[in-house]
Amino acid sequence: MTIDRHTAHEKPTGAQVLLDAAAGRGVSVCFANPGTTEMPLVTALDRTPGMRAVLGLHENVCTGAADGYARIARRAALTLLHLGPGLANGLANLHNARRAHSPVVNVVGDHASWHLPFDAPLTSDIAALASTVGAHHEIVDRVAVAAVTRRAIDDAHERLGVSTLVVPADLQQLTEQEPPQEEKRCAVPRPGVEGEAVEQAARRLRAAGSQGVLLLGGEGLSRLGQFAAGRISAATGARLYSETFPARAERGGGLPPIDRLPYFPETAVEALRDAAVVVLAGAPEPVAYFGYEGMPSRLAPQRTLHRLADVGQDVEQALVALAELVGVEDRPAGAQPLAEPAPGAALTGQTVGAALASRLPEHAIVSVEGGTCGYPFYSASAAAVPHTVMTNTGGAIGQGLPAALGAAIAAPERPVIALQSDGSGLYTAQALWTMARESADVVVLIAANHTYNVLRTELARHGSTEPGPQAARLTSLGEPAIDWVSLARGFGVPASDATTVGELCAALGDALRARGPHLIQMTM
Amino acid sequence: MTIDRHTAHEKPTGAQVLLDAAAGRGVSVCFANPGTTEMPLVTALDRTPGMRAVLGLHENVCTGAADGYARIARRAALTLLHLGPGLANGLANLHNARRAHSPVVNVVGDHASWHLPFDAPLTSDIAALASTVGAHHEIVDRVAVAAVTRRAIDDAHERLGVSTLVVPADLQQLTEQEPPQEEKRCAVPRPGVEGEAVEQAARRLRAAGSQGVLLLGGEGLSRLGQFAAGRISAATGARLYSETFPARAERGGGLPPIDRLPYFPETAVEALRDAAVVVLAGAPEPVAYFGYEGMPSRLAPQRTLHRLADVGQDVEQALVALAELVGVEDRPAGAQPLAEPAPGAALTGQTVGAALASRLPEHAIVSVEGGTCGYPFYSASAAAVPHTVMTNTGGAIGQGLPAALGAAIAAPERPVIALQSDGSGLYTAQALWTMARESADVVVLIAANHTYNVLRTELARHGSTEPGPQAARLTSLGEPAIDWVSLARGFGVPASDATTVGELCAALGDALRARGPHLIQMTM
Repeated sequence: MTIDRHTAHEKPTGAQVLLDAAAGRGVSVCFANPGTTEMPLVTALDRTPGMRAVLGLHENVCTGAADGYARIARRAALTLLHLGPGLANGLANLHNARRAHSPVVNVVGDHASWHLPFDAPLTSDIAALASTVGAHHEIVDRVAVAAVTRRAIDDAHERLGVSTLVVPADLQQLTEQEPPQEEKRCAVPRPGVEGEAVEQAARRLRAAGSQGVLLLGGEGLSRLGQFAAGRISAATGARLYSETFPARAERGGGLPPIDRLPYFPETAVEALRDAAVVVLAGAPEPVAYFGYEGMPSRLAPQRTLHRLADVGQDVEQALVALAELVGVEDRPAGAQPLAEPAPGAALTGQTVGAALASRLPEHAIVSVEGGTCGYPFYSASAAAVPHTVMTNTGGAIGQGLPAALGAAIAAPERPVIALQSDGSGLYTAQALWTMARESADVVVLIAANHTYNVLRTELARHGSTEPGPQAARLTSLGEPAIDWVSLARGFGVPASDATTVGELCAALGDALRARGPHLIQMTM
Repeated sequence: MTIDRHTAHEKPTGAQVLLDAAAGRGVSVCFANPGTTEMPLVTALDRTPGMRAVLGLHENVCTGAADGYARIARRAALTLLHLGPGLANGLANLHNARRAHSPVVNVVGDHASWHLPFDAPLTSDIAALASTVGAHHEIVDRVAVAAVTRRAIDDAHERLGVSTLVVPADLQQLTEQEPPQEEKRCAVPRPGVEGEAVEQAARRLRAAGSQGVLLLGGEGLSRLGQFAAGRISAATGARLYSETFPARAERGGGLPPIDRLPYFPETAVEALRDAAVVVLAGAPEPVAYFGYEGMPSRLAPQRTLHRLADVGQDVEQALVALAELVGVEDRPAGAQPLAEPAPGAALTGQTVGAALASRLPEHAIVSVEGGTCGYPFYSASAAAVPHTVMTNTGGAIGQGLPAALGAAIAAPERPVIALQSDGSGLYTAQALWTMARESADVVVLIAANHTYNVLRTELARHGSTEPGPQAARLTSLGEPAIDWVSLARGFGVPASDATTVGELCAALGDALRARGPHLIQMTM
């Protein structure tokens, strides 16, 4: 293989060795926004068969796309970022990837090692930045390039997290004595769950009856996991919840109608108040999203918690074992389908959620960001055809559009829909351009209410039901109103407007039939 | 003052105490993108007379605007950012502010202190992020709010750098026993320069004659500093250079025509090759921007360096003292005016630079980002009317539009022009919306060549004169071409197109006569 690409007198560069090592580990996509210190890697991309480079106009598009890609492909993509500032720009979506347990491997070019001591303008503390989102692997000499690259990739897959590989420019350029041996690697199975944890869960759920709660997260939200959860519920009477912001949840197609644990702590505490046991299956202990005076951080009484399986374990298998143990084969019926709203109805969170759920194509991937339509859609979509939902697990906004892009690259055969609030969408609207360039089949639905609505709610919770003029302006996206149709066209994405359910359904149908991306501005 | 805003039974909150302390230190602008953990601060903004809140749609707009504001106002603005991810989003332009020696004070809300241990989704290592761009000040109890706020602001002004103030949500809400006493603070004069350093500079420059070089940076690029430099040059024969990316340089209006030290190391080394002495006046030792194999990091021989004044010292006074010592009163003549290009001429870096220099309104502020037009404009503008140029000192791209916005807020009476390359402009195009909302008088000129041109140059320097298909796509902004006119309209900014010098001059004239922002897409 190497002979085809390097003539006898041309040894591979460090950059080439790095990309070959990544390709050898099955990595096939690189979401890139490179600069001067990554030029040898850019050149080497053209000599790495099977490695597809995808340009983002901002690093947070690249990192968010890598997160979305990992959620669907179940393996890491590379990002290619320029020095400390490039990594800094991508940190918010790396934070989200960390919270979503998505394997992502950043490749960050650094100054030539001999140039670093001179504190040139773009020098900064890359290690400190990388440490905030995961582990940091520095390539320090020419013989380490392949080994450290493999270690960073394996580390991301084992920890289900973010690895950052820092590669000085001189080491990208250096030629090695020998091309590295390819080292095969077997997939590492997730560690299983102790039988005792399963048996205790069974005993406690049986004893609790309708006061039992099963909280699903991670792989517990696969189809297999949820069907097992439905059987457990049918056998014991336990109530089922998903974690509030699942990285990836299978939905619809006859799955039990599992809603998310409510967002606000008072509602979540209420939901768990009478619980005798809360069994955690791939979900962490539920805690409040924010601390509110007078409300607890911990949402469930400590004595009720039982850890069946952590996110790093084989959660599906634990749920199946538990379902076998509690002994019922019957599946609960799926959710009742919702009636589609009238075509003349105005667009609200409820009508958009119901309309989209009823028009969803089979096996669609829906990237949901923002509360306006996100919550109502999730509830409605229990009754839809089989599909996959991704939410913003880490809470750093600007994740929905890049994640939709990454999902479309991971699964080109599946339609992708981004159900996106306007405020968060504006963080990474540049993702639209990459969708256009890659002809990604993404339909972007913008909930254009022209406010940071969640903040209006929060102001009210802080007693500011009538915000002052500055508070009102700081939570408004009006004056002037953003025109998403113009923005989309500016980025090369066809776009249209909808103000009623009928217009939305017509535009959605057209967009799904066409190839490539389309944006629909939903005026709410 | 406090009595008007708080009734007797209503003690000020921690948030109010913080903003009052900032206002007491003369801070009057807050570039904000707040979230849930900053709601008490948002509410308090409406009770803080003289504190203007300006919303950015992305944190890097806020931090870049604070940098531009500081360069023109010569004092710090606040930024208001949401937790670790909000700070992370703004880090790239904080990196630039650090390199430009701009005082900036970030106020970052954190989770309630009692909620932090539970590792809620948005929890991250804020201190590690802040440490990469400057000092970090944590508010840890209610009595510290005012004192720590004042310390963070004083620290930013003294260090000429970035301070980050982390304020847990519970401390924002808590009411104090007493409103804080306002503590007056006298301006701290910059430390002067030792007479010996001035005398030695005079001796060495006299001895060197035309082999003397005076390299100006920081306050050395004020009008006073440059006129002094002109006298020094006239007396000794020394050649004058500005640092390559000045944070703020006064230009035109009869100032000596001081060009920037060249960007590429081979050219810079050539410019300094025969130097017998390089006197540094507010500029650091010149080093290569990037390390290139076979080129030195240090651009001037060590034995030639003489430090007249560091950026933290009174550089202007040192230059004036040196001019007095070398003893010539004559000023060199200003640069020769360039002929305006023919109206039918195509838009190139040269024609745009010359056209803009000839049409510049007096006392304009020009925010320059990107090489295509930036270098030719800087050379041409030596012969223009008096104006101020800001460049991207730190090199993290996406700085030009936010800095122009901040400059317009700092000096509403001055016209602002953003001369902006397209690739870097796309990083923070959201700044356009804030320009529209604030009716900022900014004319944005986009050099739309649809490539990351600097990277094409760098690929060629790495031997890739014919980049492969992936390298070509990674350095292209075409396929599809960005339409800046649509983007601007989407953000509420009127926009037009220009393809010739005549069209550019007409559009520029119209835009300068109108109020509020305007964007001109220069097709190149």
